[in-house]
Amino acid sequence: MNLVGVDVGATKIAAGVVSPEGKVLARVRRQTARTPEKLLSGIVRAVSEVRDGFEVGGGCVAVPGLLLSQESIVVYSPNLHAIEGIRLKDELEPEIKLPLTIENDNSAAAWGEFRFGAGKGTNHLVFVGLGTGIGGGIISHGQLLRGAQGAGGELGHVTIQATGPRCACGNRGCLEAFASGTAIGRLAREVAGERPSSALGRLAAEREVLGEDVARLAHEDDEGAVSVLREVGRWLGIGLAGFVNVFNPEVVVVGGGAMGGGELMLECAREEIHVRARPPGRDLVEVKEATRGPDSGVIGAAARAKEHSGKYLL
Amino acid sequence: MNLVGVDVGATKIAAGVVSPEGKVLARVRRQTARTPEKLLSGIVRAVSEVRDGFEVGGGCVAVPGLLLSQESIVVYSPNLHAIEGIRLKDELEPEIKLPLTIENDNSAAAWGEFRFGAGKGTNHLVFVGLGTGIGGGIISHGQLLRGAQGAGGELGHVTIQATGPRCACGNRGCLEAFASGTAIGRLAREVAGERPSSALGRLAAEREVLGEDVARLAHEDDEGAVSVLREVGRWLGIGLAGFVNVFNPEVVVVGGGAMGGGELMLECAREEIHVRARPPGRDLVEVKEATRGPDSGVIGAAARAKEHSGKYLL
Repeated sequence: MNLVGVDVGATKIAAGVVSPEGKVLARVRRQTARTPEKLLSGIVRAVSEVRDGFEVGGGCVAVPGLLLSQESIVVYSPNLHAIEGIRLKDELEPEIKLPLTIENDNSAAAWGEFRFGAGKGTNHLVFVGLGTGIGGGIISHGQLLRGAQGAGGELGHVTIQATGPRCACGNRGCLEAFASGTAIGRLAREVAGERPSSALGRLAAEREVLGEDVARLAHEDDEGAVSVLREVGRWLGIGLAGFVNVFNPEVVVVGGGAMGGGELMLECAREEIHVRARPPGRDLVEVKEATRGPDSGVIGAAARAKEHSGKYLL
Repeated sequence: MNLVGVDVGATKIAAGVVSPEGKVLARVRRQTARTPEKLLSGIVRAVSEVRDGFEVGGGCVAVPGLLLSQESIVVYSPNLHAIEGIRLKDELEPEIKLPLTIENDNSAAAWGEFRFGAGKGTNHLVFVGLGTGIGGGIISHGQLLRGAQGAGGELGHVTIQATGPRCACGNRGCLEAFASGTAIGRLAREVAGERPSSALGRLAAEREVLGEDVARLAHEDDEGAVSVLREVGRWLGIGLAGFVNVFNPEVVVVGGGAMGGGELMLECAREEIHVRARPPGRDLVEVKEATRGPDSGVIGAAARAKEHSGKYLL
């Protein structure tokens, strides 16, 4: 049975019809709205347009932020406040007229990688999504780990350096404060000051350096940008080493918009895991880049669609 | 059906017959042996003695160290090398003539707290065992989290201060390096030097200060000992805050032989969780001391006993 996957982000709503094999048969993309009413009607319209002409069995809407799973309410979404406080399933299901699952976007991404991506065929997967912040999704024994309220999986908010810099969450020294897109930008500005003659330093003299600039300059072998991504990769590895010891996963998948640094960051992260994590888990685990692409959010969401009975449709 | 629980430790083998309600109906205690052969025969003899006169349906042997769950082999047990490398289920089952489960001791302790102790009635529990080192057990969605090889749940080996002191595992800044019994002893020696007129300082001038000395002196309100347990409690809380964000548990249970500091440590840990963990998980979670007592290891083990089919007996 085909399914509808909807990926609601801070800038766009992407909806797709996904086949049981994980292929996207149709797609629609709309701008995200800034009021709850417009956001809901935007999601309804995107689904209605995309499913037109297809037989679909159910759908899932993946949303950013801290989702209480039982109530299907996002209680905190720093980049999309319009979605906060709405009973999403209750509001959307009568309009969309499909059995509807609401899922955290990083959980959906983890599930997509588990079913169709870099973790296909495994039972134990840790997904880390590097964006403005850091999100996570954990598959353990083939099940998504949500915790008691659905608030679990917050892998960006574990302390890796208790005396470290303040994180957006208020804590000090979270993984997010060292390895998110925001952290890449901050470190890039520091390194630019130390290496003014590097391409990174010269760019920083002209305008604000963004995460994507660092990735691009590193691909051009600029020493400044390379050193930024190496350092971020090492911090990422410190966090991942802990996850390897705690979850003993077969695969750690790293994705998200701030993963432009790709292999270079993962290489350093792997070295750190080798030093810091324990056998036999550290010898088993593979650290992979997510199967990305513009459809990954939609596919991940669709893979979480369930029947009213709670049975997965895919 | 009654069950046999066996708790194999570095100094003793404790075996008990446990009723379906978690009551210990009989108990036997023997010294742990230092060779694999004597250790195995000691376990067999303890079970044979304790079950005499009882109808029992199965048993579980809880062992210290890193257990590969599929092979039932302990690959690393720093305090009981004699147990390393033996196919425990294959060796013990024919002698004991009961369906036998082999389990890591911290996982068994977590399960015991989940079924009969401080986490009774919950579905999401994190157990942290403070001993010479730190072990862990995680119950998520009512299931024990083991990871791909059974090596998961190593909650002592997450980095909380990347630049911190070397841990016994080789990594730097693990939770274990800050909040284990060993860490309590090390910090006590430091504080004794800084506060020579405290009871802790005076004791340190006479002989080596142990973890239990610190707990005793803190109960007598010695400022030196109290400050040690407060600091250890804060580091423990930094680790627990991360677990709250990752697992969103209903309860965190702290037990183990180095928990003499009890409420004082947990108070400081709770404060740290309140500052460092995120809502709504930090507002839900209860941090409790384990239901301890000499039978807790045996009860925890018995609760993990399964039929040959893999069904729990209790």
